[in-house]
Amino acid sequence: MSAFFPEIKDRIAYEGPESPNPLAYKYFSPDREVGGKPMAEHLRFAVAYWHTMQGTGADAFGGAVHKRTWRQSGDPLVTAESTLDALFEFITKLGISHYCFHDRDMAPEGADIPESNRNLERLVRRAEQLQKDSGVKLLWGTANLFSHPRYTHGAATNPDPLVFAHAAAQVRRALDATVALGGTGYVFWGGREGYSSLLNTDMKREREQLARFLRASVEYGRRIGFKGMFFIEPKPMEPTTHQYDFDAATTLNFLREFGLIDDFMLNLEANHATLAGHSFEHEILTASLAGKLGSLDINRGNPQLGWDTDQFPTDMHTATLAMWVLLKQGGLQYGGLNFDAKLRRGSVDGQDLFHAHIGGIDTFARALLVADRLVRTQALDSLIEKRYAGYDSPMGRKIQSGEFDLPELEAWAVQSGEPTLQSGREEALENLFNQYLYSSTIE
Amino acid sequence: MSAFFPEIKDRIAYEGPESPNPLAYKYFSPDREVGGKPMAEHLRFAVAYWHTMQGTGADAFGGAVHKRTWRQSGDPLVTAESTLDALFEFITKLGISHYCFHDRDMAPEGADIPESNRNLERLVRRAEQLQKDSGVKLLWGTANLFSHPRYTHGAATNPDPLVFAHAAAQVRRALDATVALGGTGYVFWGGREGYSSLLNTDMKREREQLARFLRASVEYGRRIGFKGMFFIEPKPMEPTTHQYDFDAATTLNFLREFGLIDDFMLNLEANHATLAGHSFEHEILTASLAGKLGSLDINRGNPQLGWDTDQFPTDMHTATLAMWVLLKQGGLQYGGLNFDAKLRRGSVDGQDLFHAHIGGIDTFARALLVADRLVRTQALDSLIEKRYAGYDSPMGRKIQSGEFDLPELEAWAVQSGEPTLQSGREEALENLFNQYLYSSTIE
Amino acid sequence: MSAFFPEIKDRIAYEGPESPNPLAYKYFSPDREVGGKPMAEHLRFAVAYWHTMQGTGADAFGGAVHKRTWRQSGDPLVTAESTLDALFEFITKLGISHYCFHDRDMAPEGADIPESNRNLERLVRRAEQLQKDSGVKLLWGTANLFSHPRYTHGAATNPDPLVFAHAAAQVRRALDATVALGGTGYVFWGGREGYSSLLNTDMKREREQLARFLRASVEYGRRIGFKGMFFIEPKPMEPTTHQYDFDAATTLNFLREFGLIDDFMLNLEANHATLAGHSFEHEILTASLAGKLGSLDINRGNPQLGWDTDQFPTDMHTATLAMWVLLKQGGLQYGGLNFDAKLRRGSVDGQDLFHAHIGGIDTFARALLVADRLVRTQALDSLIEKRYAGYDSPMGRKIQSGEFDLPELEAWAVQSGEPTLQSGREEALENLFNQYLYSSTIE
Amino acid sequence: MSAFFPEIKDRIAYEGPESPNPLAYKYFSPDREVGGKPMAEHLRFAVAYWHTMQGTGADAFGGAVHKRTWRQSGDPLVTAESTLDALFEFITKLGISHYCFHDRDMAPEGADIPESNRNLERLVRRAEQLQKDSGVKLLWGTANLFSHPRYTHGAATNPDPLVFAHAAAQVRRALDATVALGGTGYVFWGGREGYSSLLNTDMKREREQLARFLRASVEYGRRIGFKGMFFIEPKPMEPTTHQYDFDAATTLNFLREFGLIDDFMLNLEANHATLAGHSFEHEILTASLAGKLGSLDINRGNPQLGWDTDQFPTDMHTATLAMWVLLKQGGLQYGGLNFDAKLRRGSVDGQDLFHAHIGGIDTFARALLVADRLVRTQALDSLIEKRYAGYDSPMGRKIQSGEFDLPELEAWAVQSGEPTLQSGREEALENLFNQYLYSSTIE
Repeated sequence: MSAFFPEIKDRIAYEGPESPNPLAYKYFSPDREVGGKPMAEHLRFAVAYWHTMQGTGADAFGGAVHKRTWRQSGDPLVTAESTLDALFEFITKLGISHYCFHDRDMAPEGADIPESNRNLERLVRRAEQLQKDSGVKLLWGTANLFSHPRYTHGAATNPDPLVFAHAAAQVRRALDATVALGGTGYVFWGGREGYSSLLNTDMKREREQLARFLRASVEYGRRIGFKGMFFIEPKPMEPTTHQYDFDAATTLNFLREFGLIDDFMLNLEANHATLAGHSFEHEILTASLAGKLGSLDINRGNPQLGWDTDQFPTDMHTATLAMWVLLKQGGLQYGGLNFDAKLRRGSVDGQDLFHAHIGGIDTFARALLVADRLVRTQALDSLIEKRYAGYDSPMGRKIQSGEFDLPELEAWAVQSGEPTLQSGREEALENLFNQYLYSSTIE
Repeated sequence: MSAFFPEIKDRIAYEGPESPNPLAYKYFSPDREVGGKPMAEHLRFAVAYWHTMQGTGADAFGGAVHKRTWRQSGDPLVTAESTLDALFEFITKLGISHYCFHDRDMAPEGADIPESNRNLERLVRRAEQLQKDSGVKLLWGTANLFSHPRYTHGAATNPDPLVFAHAAAQVRRALDATVALGGTGYVFWGGREGYSSLLNTDMKREREQLARFLRASVEYGRRIGFKGMFFIEPKPMEPTTHQYDFDAATTLNFLREFGLIDDFMLNLEANHATLAGHSFEHEILTASLAGKLGSLDINRGNPQLGWDTDQFPTDMHTATLAMWVLLKQGGLQYGGLNFDAKLRRGSVDGQDLFHAHIGGIDTFARALLVADRLVRTQALDSLIEKRYAGYDSPMGRKIQSGEFDLPELEAWAVQSGEPTLQSGREEALENLFNQYLYSSTIE
Repeated sequence: MSAFFPEIKDRIAYEGPESPNPLAYKYFSPDREVGGKPMAEHLRFAVAYWHTMQGTGADAFGGAVHKRTWRQSGDPLVTAESTLDALFEFITKLGISHYCFHDRDMAPEGADIPESNRNLERLVRRAEQLQKDSGVKLLWGTANLFSHPRYTHGAATNPDPLVFAHAAAQVRRALDATVALGGTGYVFWGGREGYSSLLNTDMKREREQLARFLRASVEYGRRIGFKGMFFIEPKPMEPTTHQYDFDAATTLNFLREFGLIDDFMLNLEANHATLAGHSFEHEILTASLAGKLGSLDINRGNPQLGWDTDQFPTDMHTATLAMWVLLKQGGLQYGGLNFDAKLRRGSVDGQDLFHAHIGGIDTFARALLVADRLVRTQALDSLIEKRYAGYDSPMGRKIQSGEFDLPELEAWAVQSGEPTLQSGREEALENLFNQYLYSSTIE
Repeated sequence: MSAFFPEIKDRIAYEGPESPNPLAYKYFSPDREVGGKPMAEHLRFAVAYWHTMQGTGADAFGGAVHKRTWRQSGDPLVTAESTLDALFEFITKLGISHYCFHDRDMAPEGADIPESNRNLERLVRRAEQLQKDSGVKLLWGTANLFSHPRYTHGAATNPDPLVFAHAAAQVRRALDATVALGGTGYVFWGGREGYSSLLNTDMKREREQLARFLRASVEYGRRIGFKGMFFIEPKPMEPTTHQYDFDAATTLNFLREFGLIDDFMLNLEANHATLAGHSFEHEILTASLAGKLGSLDINRGNPQLGWDTDQFPTDMHTATLAMWVLLKQGGLQYGGLNFDAKLRRGSVDGQDLFHAHIGGIDTFARALLVADRLVRTQALDSLIEKRYAGYDSPMGRKIQSGEFDLPELEAWAVQSGEPTLQSGREEALENLFNQYLYSSTIE
């Protein structure tokens, strides 16, 4: 159990807000009861296989700098096995509960489809055993349909039907693996489903193909007994110049247009939200109001940078607003909080993986405590409700029923005269929110 | 006919690409046949009442600097009448065909609803006569539901039902005016329909209210005999921090969610598109593929500025892509090309209004000629079609029929092996596009 | 003393972090000692005359909605006097110490220069008396060289020398006023000093004119006995498409190029920083390292909006980084913390002005406490120092002395071999920073 | 000569604007005289070794997809040689004159510095021969100080002096190579010279180190007889969150602060300009007015994407403005136009390299023709000059001499009264510019 992170001797412990130990939790105390259930149940944190285990710190200007002991073997399958073992050691030492994976994170692509499938099956069997031994669970699985050269022009939306078929083959096996590992979700992130230039693209055809692909995937998943939820993860501009799943509303529109709305929920990422011109909480609320808030990829961007920086989440303001919306919809039925976040290139040590996750976990733990207090006190919600109290009047109710026409409302307006303009109290509410955010009473 | 623009003696004439006369058209030749109909029919240009007649050059840092002779009277109704007269003089001298208006552009708000209504009716009667005399037509009308203080927190989405009713009263009369003036469109731009802060907002309630408002407006419009089309104009971030009609896809999602999709088309603006993170052509194509491309607000933003600068369109690259999509869907059935554009603050003269519109008109006239040649030669479209030719194979057709399952596709992929990666030829196509764009053969 | 804000009976009091009173300070306790001096001395807060007293909530889509009792008179000079009185009532009730003004905030522009001057002198005399009576002080003055139509194409950079002269006349009198009122700073914000289009601009000439203008202003100021500091306030894109004082580095470059570097320091604004693509702390540090950090305009932007939203500062993360840099340079010698921030349009009440300022004041009060603790414990600084410890070696010292050449370093590198890559520990440091930020020990 | 691009039989020829041959120039006709010298002399185009020869189409989401025959050998030195040969074949077939390189583009890094140096020397000797045989020249050289893991925390600004020394070693040899190959420029692009987080950074120290590094490099270069120019290439945000050479003005400020201004000029890139919030022409003019416009990296970004997309330049509007400024300063003394541009990932063929460069070359060839006509006719410049004609008056001249004081200007302003506001004619000038841009008379 100490093969890969020997510098971390024990499971990371809760030591309270003022602990001088950087390798301790300040807020995350898994068994602490919050709103009737343990903190850990609210916060089904997942480690992202790709960033945490496979990340190298490479960027467009330089190669790998994060050396890991689990990648030392020259044999890809041996490396895959030690990577998996390291993942379980890491999660166990962190003391959290879940992970997420792409098929190609877990097992290397082989020379052909059958070999790729055998590789995946072998690793899945090992993961099953490790899950059993450790109690760690799979949150969701997915297929990597963007890294291989064949997906250069898209997977489901590729101009070549043979690429479509290869993608279908991958999803089939990724679904098999997700079911085998008991995942409660399966994610479609449309990595290269979009276009680089309209000069060579038939967008109509490509969107229709994407819909067909999703439909067939759901069908297969249900046929093999997948009981979890299918998620789509919106993202606006990377890697393809215009991604078809730009944001929550765009994705909902797509699902409605193609009759897929009942089969999918959304997996929303903070950094994808901000790249699309929205706050994270806006995207979360958009999905929640449509009954489609499925899971969250928690991370953050840099407001001065225009791409997906996937930094670990440390912004409690945003995290608290996220948890506030989440608690008000009763939490997440299928999903959880996945750390789709990577170390900065300069954070080269394995130990940095612990610092990064601890920071993110504590951010959401404190956010949960603050959000829970906000929900309990109804500090904001009662004020919001009061703001719309005019709709409890007879005419307000009539309007809400939809049974009115314009002349009738004009007549009422003529008779009632000019409305009184009320302050929205935005600054006062921000102060109130900050008071909750910084209050030590939640500790 | 020369009361307001005495410096422009005659109707602006077509003089060809090399004319040294800045007050002549270089490309716009209304009767020139393009694809079987006169250029002017393709390009139903409209002057925007608000910017062109009511614009003052004011910004957040300084007041009015565009002095206009039609605003000299101290009496608001006399001013309204001379403004209307000036509009018709302007359009007639430009030699184009349409205009668009908000109720409050045309007639001043009175002390109460009845007075406002009387003001509007009076001006509408005058406009009817001017239309008859000049042959100028109304493209679309709309109600200004954002300038008056009562709309500070929204119109249809206001927390106060009385504001909702005032907005309903305005739309009623704006629809009456639109019908009276023979407009083929009626636009809803959700000026303040959005939120400034989620801390004081019930987004669920507000979106539902917006839907009710739209439904009642359609109902009223159809009842009074409006035969034109209802348009929604998406915009992302101004004036309200988060506008509910963020972009085309968001608006389509809203219309589908609330069962309004059959009653509306979209009016798309170039600068709104870019603020939402899209190219103009992306938004146009998104609407077109949904059968919802209704009308265009032509202008441009500044890629280095983060707000709606509403500059006159001079970018032929974008204009040509817009016209290309438009021609391929057979043009606009209801709408046209509205100059939702304003002079820079420093362009203080009435004459600048002519320069600005001439530049915009010529941009789209040349764009039409280039796009028409692109469509006729199928230079790009034939290459696009070829790119997806694999879908004409038996398995391609099967996939397109939707009658397949994942295992079947996997089997085919196993048997067929790795696909061949083809170049998307993006750079070559950009060159080809540029060759068309700069070609003098269209002159 | 209660003429204008009757709803606020008393001076806003410190009541501690958990006070349920929204009109009390949670952190700002003026006399509390921090690092050897009272909190209030660290935080020379100033109220911005323009936003706080003259703000109306108007935006590009609607007019004034903030009605104020001090603006009820029809006589501009009477209004100016009551506005001034209201300012002093406001500051006094807030319990802070300073204000900032533009000449045209304080006194209305007259029909000609002499009348404008007389207006200003009259109000300055009244302000002198009010300062004496209340103990409130002037932080800095400035001239509004952007609102009047004559400044449409710039003030010092205007193509017309007569506009340059009018601007000079205004600065002369604004300097007189600043000296009379004992301001310790005088600010140049280049409102319209920039260009809208290079097609009509001689940038060389305009920048030279700007330098001449600044030089003459300094000369005049010193001649009349101004002992304070001249500040330039950078801003990137508003109102002119490209402002000459884009950011701190651009402004320093300008000052160096034209030999003005010894005469000016910078006044940095948070929202201007982020619009220029920088964090606020980056701009502050840039100025500080050049010995040019003069004063701060504290506010915040919205990361999803692309213009200067001038919101009240509530982000303690940013505020703490700002105070950290500030404390490390020993505070501000001349300037202070000016609330260049305005109410949201929907915050229509006078009471909202109190909420907004209280929130901003408490944000920087808490930020000061956290930053002070960071400086005292050297928690971050000691780690930073350690990171560069290699430069304490003989070769490190040699490099720092500048006395080396490339071959010599190559030889050392050959001999020393490959350096060891160390982690930058970015995530761990963010966690540490957050622990300080949220710690209740500073309370 | 046809080893690597067998599909391109001959040198790309000029065939005129309407040629249907995608592999022909439409505008670039090297010997055509423009403003007294051959087009090719105005346009010293350079191929970028890194993108064109070493590019693989890899991005953050997928690996290499551009397979090249010159990379087939397993031996890095053999690969380096065939890559160099392919470069010369490519440039020769394109019919242009220059290339640019990083040390590590040309020769692989060895096991230690001596081996790296030997590798480089070997390839430089081969390049010398190829230059001699082909007539192709080196525009500028540079050292790659960002890809190797040792540069993770910067090169000259690294916390570890040993990294500083390794960087010095590389620059020494890259300068040697540049001199050997007759380059007229040497570029410093501060790849990782910046910071990722201020929490672990001593910015003062790092900027000073950067200055020392540059000073020693200049010293060495001059000592070995380098007669060309040293360039710094600004870039704002990549790969390091905040790059020290943010933009032209920031870099000029740095050079002035550290007394390096006489030793350097700037190499400006279009996409870096737009990422920094500027137009390319703004950056070019900024450098030109400071006498520091050295060389250009021509490419373009995507206005909807927030990172350095390095697309090939096809925007003639921007290119024409660039050439206009360039011609007005008499061209580039030392530098040229380097294609710092890469194929889109989907453009997988070697042939796409030709399409891409041809498009970029033709864009700047046409831009040159238009700019030359603009300069010859003085169409814009005469209007600009007229706009500032007021400065030819006695008082205008006095102001320009700097010999005035504020009271004197006030007196003149009082006497002269209110200035007349003139239109800046921005829209008319844009139309005029477009008329030049699209005119076929330049063909």
